[in-house]
Amino acid sequence: MNASLTKKANVDVPQGKGRTAAEQVLVDYISTIAPLSEAEIEQIFEMIKIRSYKKNKVLLREGQIGHTCYFVLQGCIRQYYLMDGVEKTTNFFTEGMPITSTFVFDNKGSMFFLVCSEDSILVEGNQAEEHLFFEQMPRMETLNRMGVEMELQKNQEAFAQFIMLGPEERYLNLLNNRPDLLDRVPQYQLASYLGITPESLSRIRKRIIKK
Amino acid sequence: MNASLTKKANVDVPQGKGRTAAEQVLVDYISTIAPLSEAEIEQIFEMIKIRSYKKNKVLLREGQIGHTCYFVLQGCIRQYYLMDGVEKTTNFFTEGMPITSTFVFDNKGSMFFLVCSEDSILVEGNQAEEHLFFEQMPRMETLNRMGVEMELQKNQEAFAQFIMLGPEERYLNLLNNRPDLLDRVPQYQLASYLGITPESLSRIRKRIIKK
Repeated sequence: MNASLTKKANVDVPQGKGRTAAEQVLVDYISTIAPLSEAEIEQIFEMIKIRSYKKNKVLLREGQIGHTCYFVLQGCIRQYYLMDGVEKTTNFFTEGMPITSTFVFDNKGSMFFLVCSEDSILVEGNQAEEHLFFEQMPRMETLNRMGVEMELQKNQEAFAQFIMLGPEERYLNLLNNRPDLLDRVPQYQLASYLGITPESLSRIRKRIIKK
Repeated sequence: MNASLTKKANVDVPQGKGRTAAEQVLVDYISTIAPLSEAEIEQIFEMIKIRSYKKNKVLLREGQIGHTCYFVLQGCIRQYYLMDGVEKTTNFFTEGMPITSTFVFDNKGSMFFLVCSEDSILVEGNQAEEHLFFEQMPRMETLNRMGVEMELQKNQEAFAQFIMLGPEERYLNLLNNRPDLLDRVPQYQLASYLGITPESLSRIRKRIIKK
């Protein structure tokens, strides 16, 4: 079992009730925004759609119109762009992370690919399903809004850190904040995600081990 | 008057009614999410708080708890971090951009500063005011959620571009997407925002002019 799956949110979260570790990830996530009653949790799981995907499954291709958004219960989804035939990895979505950037507001196709780096379990929904969900549970629209605000904040913070820090500091940052990634994804993808060459990443790792 | 203030959104936006160019920026922004009736626009302007700030006004300091979020009607707000006494500029918020990262979810103080780079006109509100606003105009909560989703998408896209591109390509990207910034902010702040030294920025500019 994954370390991040067993990590409990530091809030008053209803546990158990025969939930899997993967399902608990969603309960933990929503509970960091606001406390949920057991009845609400049950209603949520009755309404959402959970699907499993095998490693290497492509969820979205460049040029495709994305109608689906996701929330990762288990596994790892890699986002990458193709630049002159070279894959540029720009994100890894793991347990407890929503993937909403697939929603299309301007009818242009996706600029990136989304592919399962591991066997993955995802909550997924399209805009019509989301609409229905909010109609049945109006409170969830507020929580969703707050959740997206939280994500925006996290993303802006991560972006600011990336701008400010040098390659070695970025690597140390990753080591602190997402240590699981180092064992889960290939080094060349990790290097790309850090905006450096695999050779630079290798040098940085050696330097840090020596310290 | 600023170029970006006169640029009209490519949608069916109610114009005029004695609105200033600054006020129109908000109408244009919301109208890219969904069309608004003239009555709704009037109600919005009755409820929101608009304030003017002088250049160099500090809106938020490191360590301070941020209770206010903003939307820029006119002007430029710079976000920066202090690292070992050195200012690291990580964002410029100009006309039509919301600043929501000031909202605090975890009761930790802000890690960054927000300062007016120019005389600025801002919509501002705290969470209580936002709550009241959504109570009076429930449809705005949906539009707000969609707006934040759009911002998250834009931010993730900009972050991915930053990871992928080299310094010169980043500069060309800025030249394409936010050409006004080049005349509005000092070169050393722009260099910091591009993650490079002022000397590198100067070399890049010379190289591009030669081409």
